[in-house]
Amino acid sequence: MTGKVYLVGAGPGDPELLTLKAFKLLKLADFVLHDDLIPAEILELVPSSTKLLNVGKRFGNKRISQEEINGLMTQNALLGLQVVRLKSGDPLIFGRAGEEIEALREAGIEVEIVPGITAALGAAASTQIPLTHRKAASAIVLVTGHRAGSDEFADWPANIPTDATVVVYMPGYEYRKMAQQLLRAGLTGDTACAIISRATSPDEQVHVTTVEDLDGSPRLASPTLLVVGEVVRLAKAADLRQRFAWSEEIANISSAQLEYALSSCAQERAE
Amino acid sequence: MTGKVYLVGAGPGDPELLTLKAFKLLKLADFVLHDDLIPAEILELVPSSTKLLNVGKRFGNKRISQEEINGLMTQNALLGLQVVRLKSGDPLIFGRAGEEIEALREAGIEVEIVPGITAALGAAASTQIPLTHRKAASAIVLVTGHRAGSDEFADWPANIPTDATVVVYMPGYEYRKMAQQLLRAGLTGDTACAIISRATSPDEQVHVTTVEDLDGSPRLASPTLLVVGEVVRLAKAADLRQRFAWSEEIANISSAQLEYALSSCAQERAE
Repeated sequence: MTGKVYLVGAGPGDPELLTLKAFKLLKLADFVLHDDLIPAEILELVPSSTKLLNVGKRFGNKRISQEEINGLMTQNALLGLQVVRLKSGDPLIFGRAGEEIEALREAGIEVEIVPGITAALGAAASTQIPLTHRKAASAIVLVTGHRAGSDEFADWPANIPTDATVVVYMPGYEYRKMAQQLLRAGLTGDTACAIISRATSPDEQVHVTTVEDLDGSPRLASPTLLVVGEVVRLAKAADLRQRFAWSEEIANISSAQLEYALSSCAQERAE
Repeated sequence: MTGKVYLVGAGPGDPELLTLKAFKLLKLADFVLHDDLIPAEILELVPSSTKLLNVGKRFGNKRISQEEINGLMTQNALLGLQVVRLKSGDPLIFGRAGEEIEALREAGIEVEIVPGITAALGAAASTQIPLTHRKAASAIVLVTGHRAGSDEFADWPANIPTDATVVVYMPGYEYRKMAQQLLRAGLTGDTACAIISRATSPDEQVHVTTVEDLDGSPRLASPTLLVVGEVVRLAKAADLRQRFAWSEEIANISSAQLEYALSSCAQERAE
């Protein structure tokens, strides 16, 4: 049998948001190499007889280099194994899959890519923020807060129209710099935004604010995502309240923030 | 039992790209309202005893108005039914879910959104185009070719950086106008682009060209998607493959695996 490498998206966190194909491959693979951010519930789907290896490089913990990951995938595929490289979200969005694909192609290994629900879509679904809206958002811009391996901001599109929704992956905690970056890109200070922490997981948290008030936001647990745009005002505030009413993390959502979210919802209904 | 409406993404076409949650909901729903573009293989997952209704409004065939769709969802949820509104791709991206959510909230109906693999991610995976790349693409811009219900181009971000990947949903066939629009947005004529038709389906087709040569492209079968950016040069067009022996593959999902998925739903229902 010929080996093959599958670059598989694990989705945003909730195991039920795996695709049927990802689910099947986790059951059938011979070897699974996964990132740090894959939840235990998803890793538990892998049979105990399957070789499972955490190749996560996050949090400065450079245990395994990219070259070593490429080597592991290549060697095992050459041995005839079905190798799954499991990445959180979608492998082709800020997942550095491009480099892995190139390395595998160079080694003559067959590659198949299985898309996953990217964090922006998972977060939007669980907070009920429509990323596009006939009246409020005609484009979506996905950017990262930081360049991989650098403290500098990545290049962003200039003059983002005020009716675009911007989703910032890995926004970090330098909220003041982030707000400045958003203003430079052409957004106005009163544009609504939401910091969404651990979207679709049981401990998801949401903080709703505006670009100009972003600086005062709490440091929610990573991974976080920042959604910026008027559509944030359409988030289901009542649901947010319900979800966090009994949670220990309730302290992170102030009553003022809740009221803000609720009032914008009420206003919307009144219109 | 209280009724509820699930806005569910069916993904880009390949039934295996349904999420476990979408799969489960199609099996358990009482009433499924779906768009025109949902493939037959996905609709066949719905048990024959379940009420299934095509509420597609595409191709100028205005059989059912948005108000009628909203009314059908509301009435059936009020009767205590579990209603699935099945949309191709992801419900929150160019799917007009925002309007449906608002109508359902106004009627006091509980809404849950189940994200799906949006067309851009499905097409990128099957053609192996990394939408971001450390060296070639640091942002993704999702736009539509046309405003819903209009012949005019929607607003696009100006000055899109040359290292962003642009994905145009519903690009249409006026390739010359499209090329002009891309140039106006700041892209250069030699930027690579790909028209991807029926991505992830067995009859997927790909045409790779550049912005300046776009005008001479064939009219591939709809739905199509246009991916623009240097990352298109990394596509593996040769790999358009045997992919979907779909029915056999689904048969490979054991009943035990299905039970896993179904039991969590049963639990949910019991709550």
